[in-house]
Amino acid sequence: MEHTVAERQAWGLHEECGIFGIYDPAGECAQTTYYGLYALQHRGQEACGIATINHRDQSCYKDVGLVGEVFDRGTLDRLNGTLAVGHVRYATTGAGERENAQPLTINYVKGTLAVVHNGNLVGTRQLRRDFEYRGAIFHTTSDSELIAYAVAQARLRCPTVEDAVREAAAHLRGAFSLLVMSPRKLIACRDPWGFRPLCMGHKGEAVLFASESCAIRAVGGVPERELDPGEIVVVEEGRVRSIRDNCRGFSHMCIFEYIYFARPDSVIAGQSVHQARANAGRLLARRHPVEADVVVGVPDSGLDAARGYALESGLPNVMGFVKNRYIGRTFITPGQESREQAVRIKLSALHSEVAGKRVVMIDDSIVRGTTCRQIVGLLREAGATEVHVRVSAPPFIAPCYFGTDIPDREKLIACHHTEEEIRALTGADSLGYLALEDLERMAPDARCGFCTGCFTGRYPVATGE
Amino acid sequence: MEHTVAERQAWGLHEECGIFGIYDPAGECAQTTYYGLYALQHRGQEACGIATINHRDQSCYKDVGLVGEVFDRGTLDRLNGTLAVGHVRYATTGAGERENAQPLTINYVKGTLAVVHNGNLVGTRQLRRDFEYRGAIFHTTSDSELIAYAVAQARLRCPTVEDAVREAAAHLRGAFSLLVMSPRKLIACRDPWGFRPLCMGHKGEAVLFASESCAIRAVGGVPERELDPGEIVVVEEGRVRSIRDNCRGFSHMCIFEYIYFARPDSVIAGQSVHQARANAGRLLARRHPVEADVVVGVPDSGLDAARGYALESGLPNVMGFVKNRYIGRTFITPGQESREQAVRIKLSALHSEVAGKRVVMIDDSIVRGTTCRQIVGLLREAGATEVHVRVSAPPFIAPCYFGTDIPDREKLIACHHTEEEIRALTGADSLGYLALEDLERMAPDARCGFCTGCFTGRYPVATGE
Amino acid sequence: MEHTVAERQAWGLHEECGIFGIYDPAGECAQTTYYGLYALQHRGQEACGIATINHRDQSCYKDVGLVGEVFDRGTLDRLNGTLAVGHVRYATTGAGERENAQPLTINYVKGTLAVVHNGNLVGTRQLRRDFEYRGAIFHTTSDSELIAYAVAQARLRCPTVEDAVREAAAHLRGAFSLLVMSPRKLIACRDPWGFRPLCMGHKGEAVLFASESCAIRAVGGVPERELDPGEIVVVEEGRVRSIRDNCRGFSHMCIFEYIYFARPDSVIAGQSVHQARANAGRLLARRHPVEADVVVGVPDSGLDAARGYALESGLPNVMGFVKNRYIGRTFITPGQESREQAVRIKLSALHSEVAGKRVVMIDDSIVRGTTCRQIVGLLREAGATEVHVRVSAPPFIAPCYFGTDIPDREKLIACHHTEEEIRALTGADSLGYLALEDLERMAPDARCGFCTGCFTGRYPVATGE
Amino acid sequence: MEHTVAERQAWGLHEECGIFGIYDPAGECAQTTYYGLYALQHRGQEACGIATINHRDQSCYKDVGLVGEVFDRGTLDRLNGTLAVGHVRYATTGAGERENAQPLTINYVKGTLAVVHNGNLVGTRQLRRDFEYRGAIFHTTSDSELIAYAVAQARLRCPTVEDAVREAAAHLRGAFSLLVMSPRKLIACRDPWGFRPLCMGHKGEAVLFASESCAIRAVGGVPERELDPGEIVVVEEGRVRSIRDNCRGFSHMCIFEYIYFARPDSVIAGQSVHQARANAGRLLARRHPVEADVVVGVPDSGLDAARGYALESGLPNVMGFVKNRYIGRTFITPGQESREQAVRIKLSALHSEVAGKRVVMIDDSIVRGTTCRQIVGLLREAGATEVHVRVSAPPFIAPCYFGTDIPDREKLIACHHTEEEIRALTGADSLGYLALEDLERMAPDARCGFCTGCFTGRYPVATGE
Repeated sequence: MEHTVAERQAWGLHEECGIFGIYDPAGECAQTTYYGLYALQHRGQEACGIATINHRDQSCYKDVGLVGEVFDRGTLDRLNGTLAVGHVRYATTGAGERENAQPLTINYVKGTLAVVHNGNLVGTRQLRRDFEYRGAIFHTTSDSELIAYAVAQARLRCPTVEDAVREAAAHLRGAFSLLVMSPRKLIACRDPWGFRPLCMGHKGEAVLFASESCAIRAVGGVPERELDPGEIVVVEEGRVRSIRDNCRGFSHMCIFEYIYFARPDSVIAGQSVHQARANAGRLLARRHPVEADVVVGVPDSGLDAARGYALESGLPNVMGFVKNRYIGRTFITPGQESREQAVRIKLSALHSEVAGKRVVMIDDSIVRGTTCRQIVGLLREAGATEVHVRVSAPPFIAPCYFGTDIPDREKLIACHHTEEEIRALTGADSLGYLALEDLERMAPDARCGFCTGCFTGRYPVATGE
Repeated sequence: MEHTVAERQAWGLHEECGIFGIYDPAGECAQTTYYGLYALQHRGQEACGIATINHRDQSCYKDVGLVGEVFDRGTLDRLNGTLAVGHVRYATTGAGERENAQPLTINYVKGTLAVVHNGNLVGTRQLRRDFEYRGAIFHTTSDSELIAYAVAQARLRCPTVEDAVREAAAHLRGAFSLLVMSPRKLIACRDPWGFRPLCMGHKGEAVLFASESCAIRAVGGVPERELDPGEIVVVEEGRVRSIRDNCRGFSHMCIFEYIYFARPDSVIAGQSVHQARANAGRLLARRHPVEADVVVGVPDSGLDAARGYALESGLPNVMGFVKNRYIGRTFITPGQESREQAVRIKLSALHSEVAGKRVVMIDDSIVRGTTCRQIVGLLREAGATEVHVRVSAPPFIAPCYFGTDIPDREKLIACHHTEEEIRALTGADSLGYLALEDLERMAPDARCGFCTGCFTGRYPVATGE
Repeated sequence: MEHTVAERQAWGLHEECGIFGIYDPAGECAQTTYYGLYALQHRGQEACGIATINHRDQSCYKDVGLVGEVFDRGTLDRLNGTLAVGHVRYATTGAGERENAQPLTINYVKGTLAVVHNGNLVGTRQLRRDFEYRGAIFHTTSDSELIAYAVAQARLRCPTVEDAVREAAAHLRGAFSLLVMSPRKLIACRDPWGFRPLCMGHKGEAVLFASESCAIRAVGGVPERELDPGEIVVVEEGRVRSIRDNCRGFSHMCIFEYIYFARPDSVIAGQSVHQARANAGRLLARRHPVEADVVVGVPDSGLDAARGYALESGLPNVMGFVKNRYIGRTFITPGQESREQAVRIKLSALHSEVAGKRVVMIDDSIVRGTTCRQIVGLLREAGATEVHVRVSAPPFIAPCYFGTDIPDREKLIACHHTEEEIRALTGADSLGYLALEDLERMAPDARCGFCTGCFTGRYPVATGE
Repeated sequence: MEHTVAERQAWGLHEECGIFGIYDPAGECAQTTYYGLYALQHRGQEACGIATINHRDQSCYKDVGLVGEVFDRGTLDRLNGTLAVGHVRYATTGAGERENAQPLTINYVKGTLAVVHNGNLVGTRQLRRDFEYRGAIFHTTSDSELIAYAVAQARLRCPTVEDAVREAAAHLRGAFSLLVMSPRKLIACRDPWGFRPLCMGHKGEAVLFASESCAIRAVGGVPERELDPGEIVVVEEGRVRSIRDNCRGFSHMCIFEYIYFARPDSVIAGQSVHQARANAGRLLARRHPVEADVVVGVPDSGLDAARGYALESGLPNVMGFVKNRYIGRTFITPGQESREQAVRIKLSALHSEVAGKRVVMIDDSIVRGTTCRQIVGLLREAGATEVHVRVSAPPFIAPCYFGTDIPDREKLIACHHTEEEIRALTGADSLGYLALEDLERMAPDARCGFCTGCFTGRYPVATGE
């Protein structure tokens, strides 16, 4: 089940950010970035911004709010140019304030830079200290400012801005998919582990970068490929050049991108997200079959896996729930006494589909268990005779240091309860998680390895914490 | 396919309004109405409002905007009381201005009244003239003000407010599902033709009315029954009384409620809306079978019928599209030149599901044909080898005078083109509409007759225009 | 001392409204009305609005807020036309809500009307009942809606709208300076007592009406004359016609317009407002002379009288106070404990001007005495050795029924205390009010009689309450 | 004459900023700073902000807008603490954007700092370059960020933050009155030239700093003294310590503070601002006497000097103008054709005071001459037979590099025209400026020397530009 900002804050499962960049000799870059950010809005609803270059002059507009709230036509018109980077944000590190909104725009020794960033660095405390001991001041608590510093300082030693990005990237640890825009260049950079996706494409003469391929398609472009982990791509006056010095030959894409973050119509590292979720459903059906009448997905993020479960099991996949499409940031949640009832306003079980039925209910994750218990309750109230919960991910048992804000261990139900206890707490008749050994099987087409740290506690980078 | 406000205005298919009312001796009526209106938001996104009675004193708050935009906690707290009526509006008659927002609150000879109204009267020009020739002034161009006048004038002759509502209702022609709130009474009234739904339910001691049962469920209540056409129900200090003087023994429920307006989890006149749509899909499959590989529904309103088509045909129902959930009132549509591309930002075809496939695409209606052509294009671009369009409604050939804002005949593609021409214009390989003779079969459980005027040009009331 | 809205609400001295109207064959009427309302903003800061006629079509925009907050260029551009009426409002009767904002725009038997109104009717309860017993409904609690009804009903019997205005005006009691705009005519009307001012002027071919001459000058026009009490002036396609049927040969202009309401640069009934106030100062100096060193006015409304006092007494008029110009509606007043200190933020005494001096302090009124005591305190703190308070109005002892919201008698300090007690309570060394017998002497040039009800308890119309 | 933001931007005479700081062991510092900023609002209306320390944790809130627009009670409550600094801004260097609003809050090697700053540095281009060549990045174009960098870098070598401020201040050139807040200390610092005022005071145990004494009085405090040029005052847990290493024994206070910037009730360097202006009026009367009937000041800033002129000349000082108090940032200026008329809406001449009179009109400055010409026109239109313009400052002939945004030389009328030409262009009968040799005589009580660069072209610091 998806969650509003307020819920996510309570619930602790923070989404990461989305980034978009474009070089287009025909201009209109702000407009295109606006549409690209709309397609990435699911990756961050807290703040957004666009920076552009028009004849070497940089402009930027950013604020707290959705893309549709922050930008109007006048603002877009004033922003136009031939280079642009954009960002949608959900706070991962740093308070969710206006000053942490991106793009980060700076002046440094060689003029201006704009930086947008998706991911989370580790070891930043030391890094920050190092800078501070050389007299640096920080306006924000964001990783992006650290990255900007690293690039600016590397630039003193490097002949070009792309070299500075390369040198800085070589010394940063953690997750960073970056776009850096100078007055003449657009530079895309992915961390050597490849935690977060970053793909490129084109539309006529324009070169496009985006966190997900869906944004490139949304603006009418053609996605070409994911950047390789560690790769840097430089676009300068239409010429595209790749720098692979930081490529190390391994990759650790966040598996949760497939499970929850990405939009189903995106293709990441060659793997359709929708099909990965459907595969998870199929794998669940094989490992946790159950005698039942219907399969229902919890909208929207459980719907793909439900299709897979249904196909594999041969059970009919029915529309078990209607989701209220109008619940937004300003929704006033009911008081403490009626919290139980809040879920009713967001989700409604379809009596005609589940009454008298044994239901397999597919959701993408169980974090604390509270929401799951309420949804099971909706199905029972609508007349389901049995509710078998199948979760298209393994249990969360560890934090994420790379941009997914998994709650503290004490709030993770799977850290403190056996599967049988969780089943009982959620009121399900049976419960089945995706098996750890099935995890990578959900993405057979993916040309990458994975980070599965939140499910295993093992990370590809020392987290130092 | 569903549409934003801006699209609907361009497109001409205006939704009607939604109404909600509650008597609750425990108070908290504003809060409950707020949640009820959230559940009815799909019936009108232009304006909304709530009026309440607290110890006989009436308060009202209304404005242009979504429920979540208009109300905050402070406003709700100030509104609380033991009677409330609420409204979500989409302009059908009268300009979409703030002054036309409902509830309409008036002072008249017996004190205060609040009126909320769903539907569209006919013959209002004459009615308005009649009042004006007796010195009346009108602040708005809305039907609701006419109704309020009619009730206020009838009240001079009638011993009670419910008698005045009955007398007024007996003389009005057209569609009106009404809630009238006096300092002590909540009165629900449905026009003698029963054009628009209006159901009642309860939650503990509270009595609830709503345009659709989904709103009663959303607030934790239990839907009981639809009001009968012509019926008036009076709630006074917990006692519920029915007045049936205006009941005439026939009924003409708008069939488009089942096809498009109502939320799939509502049950109207005993018929599940979701199942009615699924039935339409089944009937389409029987009448317009086609050799194909997959069935895809155009989200969200084509999804239910797609399930029915898939079940009946035995074809797999796949998730062919992803819809962008963040397109709202403030979305800046691309300029004229790239209108073709606008649909891409709202809707994305899933390559992995349709590439290389023969696709049956289910949508709920074709009005002008433009949107349909674009969606067919998305499928082809995603690799569909054939696209067979099936429409879960008959062709629109006539206007609606009762609250559905069907565009003028000159804009209706079916008024000027044969089915074969429409097929060619939309770029489909084949095209099939729901047959007129199947129309009523889609709602076999409905305990009512239907108005099918927009599909037949025959109306149960003389429209006089 | 002038007061913010919040203060006035606490304090009870509510200003009335301001009205502006224009016929201009060259168009641009909305723009001109906007500037005219700016010049009348001191008469009402709560809400404002403009209605215009463009080729017989009426448009209106109004909202809660200052003129500068409610209108932007786009709104003004959309409003333009060749006839306009505008209004600034401070609530006198009816709650201060958005729905009571003016212009009131209605549809009636002959088309559209827009009404703006300054003043307060008496006997409205009965009038309202009379209408209701004929089936009327009221949307607001404002006098303006009553007036509109009266005009609309009279119109059934009268051949022209101006005749209807005349007939309605003949039967209304109380204060009303009105502008009524039909698709072709602009009609100005003043009540037979002439409580509230209403002047006319021209600018080239344009005909202008305004509550005060300052607004006519502000838009570059030339004020010509006050309407006579009872007079109706009709402007139709540039022809100006006067209807004097309701003129009764007496007049009772609110004396408080000269004392406090009107802007000093206005000329009302031939009398400069600034000079009237200066005269009050002179009269005070004659009746309450005192041995002192300097005269200081409490800004802004005490400044004019202070000049008069200084001139008459021969004492120097110094700038004793600086007023903070930025205190607006959103000012957060200090908590209960530091209320005493609130005045400091608004008003600051100039040590260099008053230290070691015997000060004559001139203010326009004492209502509750609290503010006066605080201002006296500021002067003493700044080193004044003596503070002699002189008030350029007599003591308030009675309510106003005609548009000045004098507080209830229990809050009026002069209803419960002798002058000596008030002097002691305010901490002044001596206290002198304008004498009742001097009241009319302050406006020797005024071609009118006065209503002095708030100072005498005697009113020119039976108030019936 | 004073000017709105829009006018000032067109006109080029930008005001500087205002700063306020407080240590109060009793807390409530945000509330007090809010009132202090209200009293300093005349020094900057573009943006404002407050930063506080609560148990060593720093919070900050700032935005574009007036103090009353930016802060509400909730924001103030969230900010509270025992140390606070606040700022009102008018852009002097750096675009007027949100990111340039102050306080500037940073993290650096020793934790957090908040900086507020009034004044303008010179030589910043080189300073900025120096930092950049050591790898610094800048988020803004403001001097404040440069100062923060300088302090942060000095801190690496200095044992305490106040030492770092001292070292940084010793190397900066230009105007800076600063407040720096660390988690435990409040540090006030004035540049060695003493360009901008900065005074301190106390209120019980609280220690207060403000650009002007009026702000200390407004919050109920007692002003004590101006900081000396170069002085640094450190407040730490109630102990107050002065560091005088940067004091150099000279001082160059901006004379325009007395002429225009400061509020008349402030006392700067021992000199009452009101009296300085009155003195300027007296000096004008002596040097440019004229046979006339009345003296009128152009409100608000010409009023003080008008009193002085009147006293010295023996002519009566009458209220010649009424100023519209409601013209704010959102005022829509009339189109090009009617620019001449714009002044009418802001300013109205009082016919009763000037008609038939020979008028001495006192204003504080003539920049381009356009406004002056319009005001002279108002007086003539109101019947003045002669208009003698007296300006309480010498002619502007040179730019200011220290925080007063005097327009470019090509826009300064006095750079291109003789006094006689200016007289003719403004339409005055005679014209007299304050003589350069009288300039310092206007502030006989001031315990400081002056910068008179804008009138002489001679500056106390090499401007290098």
